[in-house]
Amino acid sequence: MKFENLILAVPGWLASEGPENGIVISSRARLARNVAGFSYVHRTGEDRLSEIITTVLDGARISGYDPLNYFRNEDLDELHKNIFIERHLISPALASHSSNRGVLVLEGERCSILINEEDHLRIQSFRSGFNPIGAWEDVDSIDDRLGQTIPFSFSRKYGYLTACPTNIGTGLRVSILIHLPALVLTKEIQHVIHSAGQIGLAVRGYYGEGSDVIGNLFQISNQASFGKAERIIIDDLISAVMKIIEYEKKASETLMKEARYQIEDKVWRSIGILKSARMLSTNEFMNLSSAVRLGHFLRLLDKPNIESLNEMMVMTQPAHLQARHGRLAEATERDTMRAELVRERFIDVKV
Amino acid sequence: MKFENLILAVPGWLASEGPENGIVISSRARLARNVAGFSYVHRTGEDRLSEIITTVLDGARISGYDPLNYFRNEDLDELHKNIFIERHLISPALASHSSNRGVLVLEGERCSILINEEDHLRIQSFRSGFNPIGAWEDVDSIDDRLGQTIPFSFSRKYGYLTACPTNIGTGLRVSILIHLPALVLTKEIQHVIHSAGQIGLAVRGYYGEGSDVIGNLFQISNQASFGKAERIIIDDLISAVMKIIEYEKKASETLMKEARYQIEDKVWRSIGILKSARMLSTNEFMNLSSAVRLGHFLRLLDKPNIESLNEMMVMTQPAHLQARHGRLAEATERDTMRAELVRERFIDVKV
Repeated sequence: MKFENLILAVPGWLASEGPENGIVISSRARLARNVAGFSYVHRTGEDRLSEIITTVLDGARISGYDPLNYFRNEDLDELHKNIFIERHLISPALASHSSNRGVLVLEGERCSILINEEDHLRIQSFRSGFNPIGAWEDVDSIDDRLGQTIPFSFSRKYGYLTACPTNIGTGLRVSILIHLPALVLTKEIQHVIHSAGQIGLAVRGYYGEGSDVIGNLFQISNQASFGKAERIIIDDLISAVMKIIEYEKKASETLMKEARYQIEDKVWRSIGILKSARMLSTNEFMNLSSAVRLGHFLRLLDKPNIESLNEMMVMTQPAHLQARHGRLAEATERDTMRAELVRERFIDVKV
Repeated sequence: MKFENLILAVPGWLASEGPENGIVISSRARLARNVAGFSYVHRTGEDRLSEIITTVLDGARISGYDPLNYFRNEDLDELHKNIFIERHLISPALASHSSNRGVLVLEGERCSILINEEDHLRIQSFRSGFNPIGAWEDVDSIDDRLGQTIPFSFSRKYGYLTACPTNIGTGLRVSILIHLPALVLTKEIQHVIHSAGQIGLAVRGYYGEGSDVIGNLFQISNQASFGKAERIIIDDLISAVMKIIEYEKKASETLMKEARYQIEDKVWRSIGILKSARMLSTNEFMNLSSAVRLGHFLRLLDKPNIESLNEMMVMTQPAHLQARHGRLAEATERDTMRAELVRERFIDVKV
């Protein structure tokens, strides 16, 4: 697969409709796997890392996956790596290495296999909206096929063995990216985060930068992958998220009852700024588009649609902007590029 | 004159073009006069205050002014008083009394005579843009006509006698309302204020609330009215303001050289907010329209025109908004009324 084919447009999985996509942006599942007979990545020399890649790609080819969709870190410059990160195809941890790492891209970017990240294989899938089962079915199917051709490290007692004990057992992490503006505005979010923690879920602000939550986005994921069957892990996450969705809906009803003018003002002036600004930082864009999402959810507006907002969330990121303009650019210039792109996308949106 | 005729539209003088009106909003001249044979207002009982009004109105009638254009404080409720204040026809000091005060409105609101404010008569005129001579000619002409029929307190040694010694002599105060966004942004404004003070001018932020400058608007006026002929007072103010206008122009050129993107962003997103907000406080409106004025001055845009911005500056004030809707309204509701009016006015402005 040519790199250019990947970045011509936003990942199809994100720009499509999904269940509850007024609140849940996306669902992700990933499996951690290691190849039997090799040490974990952090204890392995370059030669053996290279052998792991060969083993995985050979197995993938025999399992029916096209090794032409494999991208080697050696062939990616910083900009390309960042584009892959912004599209969630790889992690910053994988990108930080210059050799013997890479990613096999599958299903038109919906799935990918990171090779030699923390584990030998990290199999992941993303789905639009609230669809952790879809994401799980993707990675489960890939795991089944690869398991036929690649000997995975497995213990009858512990399950799949992983570099970090938190992933041992199923190797499964399921997470969803959720937009909770009403719970933030009503200050109930801390209570929700606390309660989720008590039932074994981790809630993190988007980008994982502690308290610096951008755009009212939160990632909710299971903390333990051991001692529960995969479907139980997923079902527990689903029922907790369904409750949180209910809380968010109730909080938004409260807001509309008690502060309707203020909320409408927040939504519409955000659109006004997005239509007119000549410079926009990533954070400001995320915060303004959070208000637009809220406006959607409250049926105050129907344009731009959610898929278009999801698309902009990727296309306005630094590496994508630079790729679009075909050149590297400093932060100030990127802010003008971002504002220009957003103005184009909002041109038909009435205030 | 009926009250309703006054408030149907913005004062004509403000909504018309004026010299340098990209920077100078308006020019004002006022004369302090007292009627011979009466004590100053603060030392006068109600009966004598009433006699002063009769004396002034009789004199005005004989001088050819229509006493039907006199508005008694007794007949004005709070809303009406505030409308007069917002139109600069009276001062808050005059409005604070419930009896034996009033205003004679002349020349379609361009001029007015406040009776029994600090002095028996305060004769004032406003002109659009940088035109203190026009405003002076107005009050000088009214003073000449009234001086034929009303005996003003006058001393050969001191000139016109006034309640406060700062007004003695000519009784003249000339002031201009000036918009200095570039000098504020480049932080040169403190230097300008300091220098103006050294040559006998007072520079105050709009509304005179100390450091709380709203909309980058400043009022510049002469401090002394004694020991100088009227034309010298005015010429000194004119030459100082011409220098300040030059400084502002240079500061705006510097800004466009060094921070073009930031300035354009500030201007356009201000328009975006004005086109879309559902709630706007007076202060926010003033600050946003300051950016629009700056955009005009820098030729980034030509709509809405300066006259329209001047009109909105009056029409968006609390009493005018309530009069427009025919009912009293609390601050929150006024913010929605203000936003609605501004959206109407900006509907044809492209971002």
